[in-house]
Amino acid sequence: MTSLQQSFNVPFTYNVSFTTKLFSVDNPLFRQFLAQQTSGGTVKKMLVVVDEGVLSAHPTLPAAIRTYLAQNTAVQLVADLLVVPGGEAAKNDPSLVDLIVDAVNEFGIDRHSYIVGIGGGAVLDLVGYAAAISHRGVRHIRIPTTVLSQNDSGVGVKNGVNYRGKKNFIGTFAPPVAVFNDAHFLTTLDDRDWRSGIAEAVKVALIKDLPFFEWLETHTDALAQRDSEAMSYLIYRCADLHMQHISGGDPFEMGSARPLDFGHWAAHKLEYLTDFSIRHGEAVAIGIALDVVYSQLAGRIQEIEADRILHVLQGVGFDLFHPALAENNSEHLVRGLAEFQEHLGGELTITLLDALGKGVEVHEMDVTLIRRAVSKLEVDSLSNV
Amino acid sequence: MTSLQQSFNVPFTYNVSFTTKLFSVDNPLFRQFLAQQTSGGTVKKMLVVVDEGVLSAHPTLPAAIRTYLAQNTAVQLVADLLVVPGGEAAKNDPSLVDLIVDAVNEFGIDRHSYIVGIGGGAVLDLVGYAAAISHRGVRHIRIPTTVLSQNDSGVGVKNGVNYRGKKNFIGTFAPPVAVFNDAHFLTTLDDRDWRSGIAEAVKVALIKDLPFFEWLETHTDALAQRDSEAMSYLIYRCADLHMQHISGGDPFEMGSARPLDFGHWAAHKLEYLTDFSIRHGEAVAIGIALDVVYSQLAGRIQEIEADRILHVLQGVGFDLFHPALAENNSEHLVRGLAEFQEHLGGELTITLLDALGKGVEVHEMDVTLIRRAVSKLEVDSLSNV
Ligand SMILES: NC(=O)c1ccc[n+]([C@@H]2O[C@H](COP(=O)([O-])OP(=O)(O)OC[C@H]3O[C@@H](n4cnc5c(N)ncnc54)[C@H](O)[C@@H]3O)[C@@H](O)[C@H]2O)c1
Ligand SMILES: NC(=O)c1ccc[n+]([C@@H]2O[C@H](COP(=O)([O-])OP(=O)(O)OC[C@H]3O[C@@H](n4cnc5c(N)ncnc54)[C@H](O)[C@@H]3O)[C@@H](O)[C@H]2O)c1
Ligand SMILES: [Zn+2]
Ligand SMILES: [Zn+2]
Repeated sequence: MTSLQQSFNVPFTYNVSFTTKLFSVDNPLFRQFLAQQTSGGTVKKMLVVVDEGVLSAHPTLPAAIRTYLAQNTAVQLVADLLVVPGGEAAKNDPSLVDLIVDAVNEFGIDRHSYIVGIGGGAVLDLVGYAAAISHRGVRHIRIPTTVLSQNDSGVGVKNGVNYRGKKNFIGTFAPPVAVFNDAHFLTTLDDRDWRSGIAEAVKVALIKDLPFFEWLETHTDALAQRDSEAMSYLIYRCADLHMQHISGGDPFEMGSARPLDFGHWAAHKLEYLTDFSIRHGEAVAIGIALDVVYSQLAGRIQEIEADRILHVLQGVGFDLFHPALAENNSEHLVRGLAEFQEHLGGELTITLLDALGKGVEVHEMDVTLIRRAVSKLEVDSLSNV
Repeated sequence: MTSLQQSFNVPFTYNVSFTTKLFSVDNPLFRQFLAQQTSGGTVKKMLVVVDEGVLSAHPTLPAAIRTYLAQNTAVQLVADLLVVPGGEAAKNDPSLVDLIVDAVNEFGIDRHSYIVGIGGGAVLDLVGYAAAISHRGVRHIRIPTTVLSQNDSGVGVKNGVNYRGKKNFIGTFAPPVAVFNDAHFLTTLDDRDWRSGIAEAVKVALIKDLPFFEWLETHTDALAQRDSEAMSYLIYRCADLHMQHISGGDPFEMGSARPLDFGHWAAHKLEYLTDFSIRHGEAVAIGIALDVVYSQLAGRIQEIEADRILHVLQGVGFDLFHPALAENNSEHLVRGLAEFQEHLGGELTITLLDALGKGVEVHEMDVTLIRRAVSKLEVDSLSNV
């Protein structure tokens, strides 16, 4: 019996650029990116897929893209610009994957062509997935239009769609070739989507970066009042921390540790329990609050530290309790732990806090403490009314 | 305008083991692999998907697998063993992807569980794809059962299914966690499938390894007579060269060069023109012959070298001409060049020979020389009758 050992590294690189009005003719950024990519003088095709919600808030976008690219000889925009529903609907309907793959087929999009996704995290997850499986991966450019997608999902390496009601059951790890964060899009977000992405910034600050958490404390009001400068800084810092985490660790998540999932075990369950009527970020804010109070009850952090965190979350406008948490004596919630483990595979790994700015991994949680944490959040929420 | 630069390497490792009767209880190989993988004492699930053609030739296989794994406490075989049609049918029916993904869902297969594919290249391409998209990649073990899959497709990093009649239109790059080449399976192959995989060995020898080509020359008869020892060496050498190529170059094929596609531009077209009535390897043998004669007509190699190659291919039993090559004054065939370029993306890149064991990349082909090469193969085939 003999064997051959295979071993190699696959390198990935991409830039995340921060700009405003990307497709304004006097903005050279996108043009410059395309110019750097040309090779051998061949004209590359480009297929653009847009989030319906973005399109209705920015109805002149398709014309702006056409005008912008008309001057460009290295890239040829294909006839149709595809429009897909925004939000979770994008990931729930399998025929939307086919819609994009069919366009790849019809327009002769090859592996060196581009598929551009413009939209919130859900649309980007759909488009990224369709691009990843077409011809074993067509070059994919992301233009995220929500806070969450600009500071988290859109700058990372994952995509996915839902399958028979299970979130992200189908998907791949497939880095984009470029990401363009355009701050102008954020002006048309509704308040819930503006706020929602802030939860991921609080999360990453808490597990990785005390100065960033302190910055969040001093800018809570500005963020609540939709100050665009504060938001730009938040997105930049949060994206940076996420990206460092990806490159510094296990980009394709082959192990079981997932520190960026701090606050997420309860959040995932809550999204299901509420039938996705609450936003991911809203669920994450509650999930963070729960694991923060738990960390305090477990003696890992001080009450004063826990309060500072809850204060920031409430300050930007999050509710920190939902009745589904307490339902059936929290039985439903607790089942989420096992589901989270199954989702990750391997042994249960949960991130808690050992200090502000310092996450810690644990492999079990005490159900009594979870119930006490839920009660505390419930009591707090009543006294806040 | 600011930007963040992302850059990381993703490491992949796996072993390709050579054995015989993998699931014989006294063969420790598979057990040893599983033992090395255990982590944290969690029991991993295993879903097995088998090629129908393999199952009818080896009807006791499922029982052998159950017996073999029954003694293993680190892995729990799920209730059903899935059986899928063998050959291209596996890749033409989208419901088979769903069948596997549904099993992943139903049996709670997580990212640290295993999906094992047992079969020819087509079934492995299907199973590898379904595993790659489930939970963004479930650990995948390949047990290839044909010559082609043991020396080429099964030891590599690609998977895929067909879409609306287009071969491999959908797929990903997703390395397996292990490959087990079991020589016993080869005894039940029909002659065409035995022979078919030899074409890839001739291909890789010609572009990379003169001594291996010389070995093929001296073992042509043994291979034609189904000598299992000669075949074992051929598979080992060919797998080794393929694997070195992958690790030494561009594993996920982000550039346009594809030297391993020597002989494949015409082969791909021929498979279509014959409606896949000829095997991939049979088409590749003809494609190699064509590009060898072309290389000679273009003055790159000597006639005596070309003849040595054609002699090996004929010696193992390949036809080196098919009427579809000449049809319509070779117009159909020539169109295959453009399609090959579209498939790869970027500029046209074709591998020719500069010597035995030495491939060379060119970016255009002379249609007159292609027609002359076709004529020569046609004349030779008539004189051989
Ligand atoms: N891939 C990853 O790593 C990752 C990480 C976290 C979350 N996600 C996914 O991201 C999704 C959530 O994304 P999201 O929070 O960005 O929300 P979303 O994509 O669900 O969009 C929310 C709503 O905002 C609309 N919208 C988007 N941009 C707009 C704009 N500029 N102006 C007005 N309306 C706009 C959309 O049409 C939609 O109706 C979830 O599906 C989640 O699973 C993915
Ligand atoms: N992923 C890659 O990198 C890659 C590379 C080359 C080819 N391929 C793909 O591989 C496929 C061809 O694979 P193949 O040549 O292995 O043939 P195959 O998978 O088409 O199988 C041919 C036939 O042999 C049967 N069979 C398989 N093993 C058997 C055994 N041990 N005994 C008896 N019958 C057996 C099958 O049921 C089938 O009927 C094509 O779809 C091709 O696209 C993939
Ligand atoms: Zn999140
Ligand atoms: Zn081949």
